[in-house]
Amino acid sequence: ICDTGFFTDTFRQLLHYLSSCADVSLIFGWFARPTTVNHGHASKSFLHDFLDEMQAENIKHHLRKLTRLPHLAGSQQNLDLAKQIRAEWMEFGLDSVELVPYDVLLSYPNKTNPNYISIVDHLGNEIFNTSLAEPVPEGYEDVTDIVPPYSAFSAKGQPEDELVYVNYGRTEDFFKLERELGINCSGKIIIARYGKIFRGNKVKNAMLVGAKGIVLFSDPADYCADGVEPYPNGWNLPGGGAQRGNVLNLNGAGDPLTPGYPAKEYTYRSSLEDAVGLPKIPVHPIGYHDAVHLLQHMGGPLPPDNWKGALNISYRIGPGFMDGLNQNKVRMNIHTNNQVTRIYNVIGWIRGAVEPDRYVILGGHRDAWVFGGIDPVSGAAVVHESVRAAGKLMKKGWRPRRTLIFASWDAEEFGLLGSTEWAEDHARVLQERAVAYINADSAIEGMYTLRVDCTPSLHTLVYDITKKVSSPEEGEEGMTLYQSWHKRDNSTERDAPWISKLGSGSDFEAYFIRLGIASGRARYTKNRKTERYSSYPVYHSVYETYEIVERFYDPSFRRLEAVARVRGGLIFSLADSPVLPLDCVEYAMSLTKYANSIYQLALKHPAAMEQYSVSFDSLFSAVENFTVAARDFHQRLDQLDTSNALAVRMVNDQLMYLERAFTDPLGLPGRPFYRHIIFAPSSHNKYAGESFPGIYDALFDIENAVDPQKAWDEVKRQISIAAFTVNTAAETLKPVVS
Amino acid sequence: ICDTGFFTDTFRQLLHYLSSCADVSLIFGWFARPTTVNHGHASKSFLHDFLDEMQAENIKHHLRKLTRLPHLAGSQQNLDLAKQIRAEWMEFGLDSVELVPYDVLLSYPNKTNPNYISIVDHLGNEIFNTSLAEPVPEGYEDVTDIVPPYSAFSAKGQPEDELVYVNYGRTEDFFKLERELGINCSGKIIIARYGKIFRGNKVKNAMLVGAKGIVLFSDPADYCADGVEPYPNGWNLPGGGAQRGNVLNLNGAGDPLTPGYPAKEYTYRSSLEDAVGLPKIPVHPIGYHDAVHLLQHMGGPLPPDNWKGALNISYRIGPGFMDGLNQNKVRMNIHTNNQVTRIYNVIGWIRGAVEPDRYVILGGHRDAWVFGGIDPVSGAAVVHESVRAAGKLMKKGWRPRRTLIFASWDAEEFGLLGSTEWAEDHARVLQERAVAYINADSAIEGMYTLRVDCTPSLHTLVYDITKKVSSPEEGEEGMTLYQSWHKRDNSTERDAPWISKLGSGSDFEAYFIRLGIASGRARYTKNRKTERYSSYPVYHSVYETYEIVERFYDPSFRRLEAVARVRGGLIFSLADSPVLPLDCVEYAMSLTKYANSIYQLALKHPAAMEQYSVSFDSLFSAVENFTVAARDFHQRLDQLDTSNALAVRMVNDQLMYLERAFTDPLGLPGRPFYRHIIFAPSSHNKYAGESFPGIYDALFDIENAVDPQKAWDEVKRQISIAAFTVNTAAETLKPVVS
Repeated sequence: ICDTGFFTDTFRQLLHYLSSCADVSLIFGWFARPTTVNHGHASKSFLHDFLDEMQAENIKHHLRKLTRLPHLAGSQQNLDLAKQIRAEWMEFGLDSVELVPYDVLLSYPNKTNPNYISIVDHLGNEIFNTSLAEPVPEGYEDVTDIVPPYSAFSAKGQPEDELVYVNYGRTEDFFKLERELGINCSGKIIIARYGKIFRGNKVKNAMLVGAKGIVLFSDPADYCADGVEPYPNGWNLPGGGAQRGNVLNLNGAGDPLTPGYPAKEYTYRSSLEDAVGLPKIPVHPIGYHDAVHLLQHMGGPLPPDNWKGALNISYRIGPGFMDGLNQNKVRMNIHTNNQVTRIYNVIGWIRGAVEPDRYVILGGHRDAWVFGGIDPVSGAAVVHESVRAAGKLMKKGWRPRRTLIFASWDAEEFGLLGSTEWAEDHARVLQERAVAYINADSAIEGMYTLRVDCTPSLHTLVYDITKKVSSPEEGEEGMTLYQSWHKRDNSTERDAPWISKLGSGSDFEAYFIRLGIASGRARYTKNRKTERYSSYPVYHSVYETYEIVERFYDPSFRRLEAVARVRGGLIFSLADSPVLPLDCVEYAMSLTKYANSIYQLALKHPAAMEQYSVSFDSLFSAVENFTVAARDFHQRLDQLDTSNALAVRMVNDQLMYLERAFTDPLGLPGRPFYRHIIFAPSSHNKYAGESFPGIYDALFDIENAVDPQKAWDEVKRQISIAAFTVNTAAETLKPVVS
Repeated sequence: ICDTGFFTDTFRQLLHYLSSCADVSLIFGWFARPTTVNHGHASKSFLHDFLDEMQAENIKHHLRKLTRLPHLAGSQQNLDLAKQIRAEWMEFGLDSVELVPYDVLLSYPNKTNPNYISIVDHLGNEIFNTSLAEPVPEGYEDVTDIVPPYSAFSAKGQPEDELVYVNYGRTEDFFKLERELGINCSGKIIIARYGKIFRGNKVKNAMLVGAKGIVLFSDPADYCADGVEPYPNGWNLPGGGAQRGNVLNLNGAGDPLTPGYPAKEYTYRSSLEDAVGLPKIPVHPIGYHDAVHLLQHMGGPLPPDNWKGALNISYRIGPGFMDGLNQNKVRMNIHTNNQVTRIYNVIGWIRGAVEPDRYVILGGHRDAWVFGGIDPVSGAAVVHESVRAAGKLMKKGWRPRRTLIFASWDAEEFGLLGSTEWAEDHARVLQERAVAYINADSAIEGMYTLRVDCTPSLHTLVYDITKKVSSPEEGEEGMTLYQSWHKRDNSTERDAPWISKLGSGSDFEAYFIRLGIASGRARYTKNRKTERYSSYPVYHSVYETYEIVERFYDPSFRRLEAVARVRGGLIFSLADSPVLPLDCVEYAMSLTKYANSIYQLALKHPAAMEQYSVSFDSLFSAVENFTVAARDFHQRLDQLDTSNALAVRMVNDQLMYLERAFTDPLGLPGRPFYRHIIFAPSSHNKYAGESFPGIYDALFDIENAVDPQKAWDEVKRQISIAAFTVNTAAETLKPVVS
């Protein structure tokens, strides 16, 4: 009976009788020694049903349906899609589904005054203009409302000047330009290639050096895989394609006008001047067909007409466009508008049977730059299938122990706005009640193997779940996803598949970095060792269609099915296991690794370390305390009387709140919404996760500090904060009474 | 059996059997309908025992024992006292007691170079010097280590200049001086009388106008009650007495060198230049015998030699000391040193029987300026008696449902340091687990009736407990404390005793204002309507002895007994009631009152309200939402299946976290450690509580704003934050699944 979760009326009466005795055992629960009853049994069989229920064919169907039209955040189409999803989720059997609106700052090109870049001769004539739109792929010729490539939130303006090429526009690229080559970018227009880091960081760097505009282009070296044709004959980026994307530096603030608070109707909005993270200069993206025209006019050797490779920065970097023969300049023509616009999250609920006040969230965005074939609908289709499967199980009598929340976020592409506003709106209840957040952005970005980024406490569960899922690869029948993944991408540290830290750039940010909720993401990816192109080639272009998935990335849809089962298996186990499947010992191991790593970084300055008496002893001691506390905690867990509901709740609270303990309300220096002391998006690349970010940032470029005493004092202060935070997290794992 | 909490081995076996069924009922708990079992019954009988166990004679004994020697924070005597308390608490029967050290910045006079104020003639001769110490009371002549009156954390220095009298040194006093009288204080020495506001605010105000020093004196008008003799013949302040006290503006930061983090050995300490809240000018306190000498040299009519009344500010205010006849000046001679010093909290635990991970805290400080007869030992003696009574009950078989923590804080007098460092040290577990904090500073400051300041959710419990305690007043046999209190001090709003908001100035600050833990305090007080002197006359002087309590304030020790029973009854009920005795509807009523009150304040500017479109609608709407949610919550509570341990835990979590929901990690503008959006210490008087402090401060003196648009924008922003916070608190009370 227990194995299936069904029971007869007679059994219910028995339960009724027993339950009336229950609290007696709870009051005196410390005398109770459990015998059997592990609620896990029922879950396990349902877990199997749940994983099986998610099927490739359904995901294919969802993907097709959700990619027919563009659905840009703030558009009517995206609201229509929200309503459609709400209706289907209700039909699938969720307890409730609601549309949750916010009024946030979005940014759109001016429809009557398009954006472009010109080459202007000495008479002021525009002798070359970049294209206004991407060639539309076959089959989509009649679609209206395809937004042309643009940099969302770009400042308006028509700056005109020399062009300076700065490679990827990374901090180190600008250092090289300024410090080694002695080139001053102030007042110039920057051209940088996409890739390596988040585009917003490139723009920030350009502003820091005083540039008056920045052009971003897709270099074939970064957006074309070897031996692959451009779309539609292959999955490479065509020369006319370009990468849309926001160029904000929000640092987790959400809506730029309402930092820290949800963008409701009554919410106070700052002026645009005081808005968070808006670039102060024009920004525009172009494809490589256009880029080559601009670059050919710069000093140094010309790229060939059939240019397909990276520029060699060793001779290409630096200012150009002003060689002896011409006095041409570049002019940017940018007319993009910021406007407060209503967006809609779709939020669906399954009420938990035993602990309705514990929430497990599966969230991913719905808004897309155009069709969103990969980003985000490959992920949204997976969420859709998870909701359907959960509904199916509910019809069989299942109900999760804890509450499940499914979210279809809006305006992720405009700075993670929908997810961040909802997190801000519900910060108090989420801090009290959220067990975990699993993110569901693009489910596929390559055809090689699984990629997981998650908090260390989820490592073990990820491994467990992937052992229950079959490999989607042809020729690997009978092999588990774990085995397939392990074979392709082993960790450098141990005999297990590689799992990475969480960075940012998707909707988990507010949940993990600001609120301290255990989070993770999983997707199918390329071979990170051999495939060197950035992201996937057609990223954020009009060529992200249903067909690119169906023809190239996952013709059988078994890779998406595998991702669905990983994401679904995670939320199922988190919602249904009596004892939360979070592993503190894994956290301890990661902390040890991070402490060693940041210490090694500091050791690059042995003289300064000695001169300023910089010690990492307190941090290593804290990590040791944490390690002992984690080990002891799991030993006590082995002894846990799982029949004692309050005892189980207490250890679950300790597990749930562990991630919270790593957050500090004071936030990181200059980044008040990045509150996690162990993980933050890199200050130099939002996409990448940095461990011990406070110490890392304090050490960054410290050899060039104007005031070394002050700089090393800040390192010491950050070590102290990190040590305290790890100690305090350890405290939360100790027995609850000292 | 249940009523007494005892049970036989046979019964244990039965429980053991039943408990093995327990989780079945929990898994399917929503089918269970409870029958009886209200754990409250046992508690009630123990509550009665607990209240009865606390006795006047014991408190008298504790007070005598704990006031024999001075026990200044950081002194050997205060460490000895900590060890003594630890030993006695262990003996009383607590599960564990520990000394918890921190290394914080304290401040002491230079023993070889005393502080004083001089009148200096035009030749530079000191023609008058203030006294170096207070005359020691009879019986204490041989006591060493009595620290002379000083202003802790005063800057060092010997400024010399004209003296400017500014009444109480309040914001409005300085406004009057500068705006109405046109007097510039820059570079002058200020003299202000004690009273009305926290002394640190006077010093801050003096710094803001550019004064180079400030002398604080006790005016008989504020420190002598009519018809009462100076100590030892009465309880008035003698002319040679003066008020010690710190002059920091910490705004909740705790140790000035480690804001936000506990002052452990490994903790990074900022430099003194970067320390939080230290005054930049010398400060010194004097008694009225000395003050009259300084004031007699100022312009205007002289105070009489037998001066016993306030100066009339209408002609006295303003600069002086430079009338035609002399060119005398005042010189301050201040040599006080700041030094990092080890302090010790004593922390005692009783492990909760059912929910050990829920904490109820009774905390009060131990350190005193000298003997601490009133401040703090009248309170510490009460804590001591509560611990003894709890230990006694434990020997009878009682153990509270939740964990009880008793704290004897150190260095309260130096800026609430011991309590704040411990709060910082354990912020994570306290946020997760703390149900309530009851403060136990001075238990008596007058002889009239009870005074309670607490969070609104504790109102009902305070009334309930005081109905179970007898009036301590002679001639009121058979009357409850509630009746006695009600008779003497009725609320202006309804037929119930007056309860006030929490301000600050004692150890609850970090728990309530920073961490959002429901808090309260209770003491015996004077008649606030007729007794106009400030605090109690001998406050912070050497005359705060055991004898002043025994002879004047509470000869029968029944008032202290009553306070002990109120404080004790609060922690007992909070720790032992199955459903937490917190009342959300009272919170709703208070919010309504505060919203009306801040709205009335804004309405003083009708033209600006219209010009800048300032609306309070969102706030009133939020308060209405909260009111409905609170009412519905308590209705659901009436239906609660109290036999369902998890169901009880869930509503208790909602009750516990309600106070937390009012806090905002971003804090108030410029005061990052004041995070409570509903309550904060006034920016103009730390002692007073301000409701909706963000809005209040934005409105303050707005008619003189340099940029009215910006000032009113800030008002609107603060209204928006307040409305959001109240809405989000309401959300935490709603059913846990939407």
